[in-house]
Amino acid sequence: MVPPGFVAAGVACGMKATGVLDLGVLASLRPTTSGMVDTTSALPAAPVQRNRNLRRGAVRAVVVNAGKANAATGAVGLEDAHEMGRRAADGLGVAADEVAVCSTGTIGEPLDMDPVGPGIDAAVAALTPAGAGDFGRAICTTDRAPKGGTFRLELAGGTVTIAAAAKGAGMISPHMATMLAYITTDAAIAAGDLQAVTAAAASASFNRISIDGQMSPSDTLLVMANGEGDPIGGADLERFASALAAVCRWLAIQMVKDGEGADHAVRLLVSGAHDDAEAAAVARAVGNSPLVKTAIFGRDPNWGRISQAVGQALAGAPGEVHEPVVHLDGVGLDDPAAASVLGRGEYDLQVALGRGSGADELWVSDLTHAYVSLNAEYHT
Amino acid sequence: MVPPGFVAAGVACGMKATGVLDLGVLASLRPTTSGMVDTTSALPAAPVQRNRNLRRGAVRAVVVNAGKANAATGAVGLEDAHEMGRRAADGLGVAADEVAVCSTGTIGEPLDMDPVGPGIDAAVAALTPAGAGDFGRAICTTDRAPKGGTFRLELAGGTVTIAAAAKGAGMISPHMATMLAYITTDAAIAAGDLQAVTAAAASASFNRISIDGQMSPSDTLLVMANGEGDPIGGADLERFASALAAVCRWLAIQMVKDGEGADHAVRLLVSGAHDDAEAAAVARAVGNSPLVKTAIFGRDPNWGRISQAVGQALAGAPGEVHEPVVHLDGVGLDDPAAASVLGRGEYDLQVALGRGSGADELWVSDLTHAYVSLNAEYHT
Repeated sequence: MVPPGFVAAGVACGMKATGVLDLGVLASLRPTTSGMVDTTSALPAAPVQRNRNLRRGAVRAVVVNAGKANAATGAVGLEDAHEMGRRAADGLGVAADEVAVCSTGTIGEPLDMDPVGPGIDAAVAALTPAGAGDFGRAICTTDRAPKGGTFRLELAGGTVTIAAAAKGAGMISPHMATMLAYITTDAAIAAGDLQAVTAAAASASFNRISIDGQMSPSDTLLVMANGEGDPIGGADLERFASALAAVCRWLAIQMVKDGEGADHAVRLLVSGAHDDAEAAAVARAVGNSPLVKTAIFGRDPNWGRISQAVGQALAGAPGEVHEPVVHLDGVGLDDPAAASVLGRGEYDLQVALGRGSGADELWVSDLTHAYVSLNAEYHT
Repeated sequence: MVPPGFVAAGVACGMKATGVLDLGVLASLRPTTSGMVDTTSALPAAPVQRNRNLRRGAVRAVVVNAGKANAATGAVGLEDAHEMGRRAADGLGVAADEVAVCSTGTIGEPLDMDPVGPGIDAAVAALTPAGAGDFGRAICTTDRAPKGGTFRLELAGGTVTIAAAAKGAGMISPHMATMLAYITTDAAIAAGDLQAVTAAAASASFNRISIDGQMSPSDTLLVMANGEGDPIGGADLERFASALAAVCRWLAIQMVKDGEGADHAVRLLVSGAHDDAEAAAVARAVGNSPLVKTAIFGRDPNWGRISQAVGQALAGAPGEVHEPVVHLDGVGLDDPAAASVLGRGEYDLQVALGRGSGADELWVSDLTHAYVSLNAEYHT
């Protein structure tokens, strides 16, 4: 489902195996406001480079291909990204700088415009209010399933819809950005407000997950609002901001649950750090440790590996460092009940440092044989 | 083999499976000078904490147990470490602060002194000039084989011997330190000189390897020299420093080759960075990336994943960032010969950044199913 005034489509252009959807277009039939955040990688993908010159706060469509990321593709890649945007804009009858472009898949191989160009034409021709499902499937790569949903939000002026579509299962450790996620709403929101709530939502959601500690050059979160009439403000804007953050958080957690090869999704709660930044560093060190991640996979209450990661993260930190106090869903590791928590597909891993009041949250997946198989055999 | 004046032993005290050697003592029969570096972890193991108060530059023996690391064991652990040192010193007839203590194995479980205490007595009783082999086996944990050897060095005053014993296969990413490594020599070296060449050797060897990006709380490199007469200086000291660095480098590379579950040992050569520190950061990012490591395992010439890791490492770096130019043993990734290089058990992965003259070298292993099995099933 997309909100009123939006249309979507997904088609098989032939970049992935025959018949698999691999190109999607999502567009508003009327002008929008928009918010967007993207990767902080020093080598952003060509579409990300191009999107940084879009009409600020007025993006009304996005075209996405899956199969090749058009990252690390040089000048040719940049031209291909521009061509994707131009072709979609021509079909939609809008300006090229109103259309975002995203590509996901293998890094370092040039995009083949022969399938992609006609694919864009076909997707634009197929646009329909019922096309969100196909769009969601078309943007996936190693995802086990598309991620998305539709939500209703009650505002003073009436009910609005928020719809979300996202992909992401590997190379996931966004920072001030996300994997590919597209959110549409029929609320009316001023562009400046939308950018602010978009950035805040990304920070509290996608920037709080890690599957393998690897930041993607393609990460993009795009929020488009096409509501007519006076933009919302005050309490309604706060309600919208909360709802957007909740939707982003829900998408981000879905990504972790769909982490490449993941058996467990763990919410890592670090408390008692000197400050929040220190808590975040400890959370990344613990959550990205292959020793901790294999222990989660092996259902091993391995307190020592958490202590090791904390010791590494705080090397050189001022003040006294204490051994961390660890609980699993509130159960101490020495408690016989810990074994049953470790068998859960999802649980809280609570790490208390006893140094101050800094805290952080990070959702992480485990490191399994399936992760190794997928990444030793799949050429991303 | 140990140099003249040194003795060694390894016994089975019962901490590991019955009959497996798990406790070793290495000692000089006469006074020594010594150099030592240890972990920079903020939560060092109890033996490391204790060893920081040893008689500086005059350590003449070390007692090591394998099976439990005596790390994250609090006050009881510190007392156990002291007791290990006292018991060995009593047996050897030397002062407790002349004896280093090391423990390796599971983190976070108290050491059981019931097997360890009598084990120390038995090891001291078994000390012999021919005991180096048993000592080397006794200090191993997940190592596939002991690491060590004996070398001769020609100095102006005659030939000296350098003998080395080390362990390390997982939780390997030392920083200004090492895993457990013990080097003995019958050269005569002033304590200050020995500490300086020890630190320099560690920096050029153990600090240039990473198996899983995880720093151990137990990392220790101890060098003991028991030569009599005037300490060496000038050209001889330089020769010794070079030889010590070469031995440490050889031990460090052995650790990577024996990396937990490793199929490949790769020498990562980063060049063209803004400065050496940036090159080191890029080398760590590439070498510790699970995506790069699974690609090495899968023999996949995956340039894109290297570009991705470089982009992440240089996020926020000043100046222009270029796509990295990558070679394998000098062969470009597009060259058909690249496939055969990827099949080698050992090769150079050369990453040129084109930003300046900074360079770094890092030896890394790959990420395999065997690593996941070992760490999901083994409680370190």
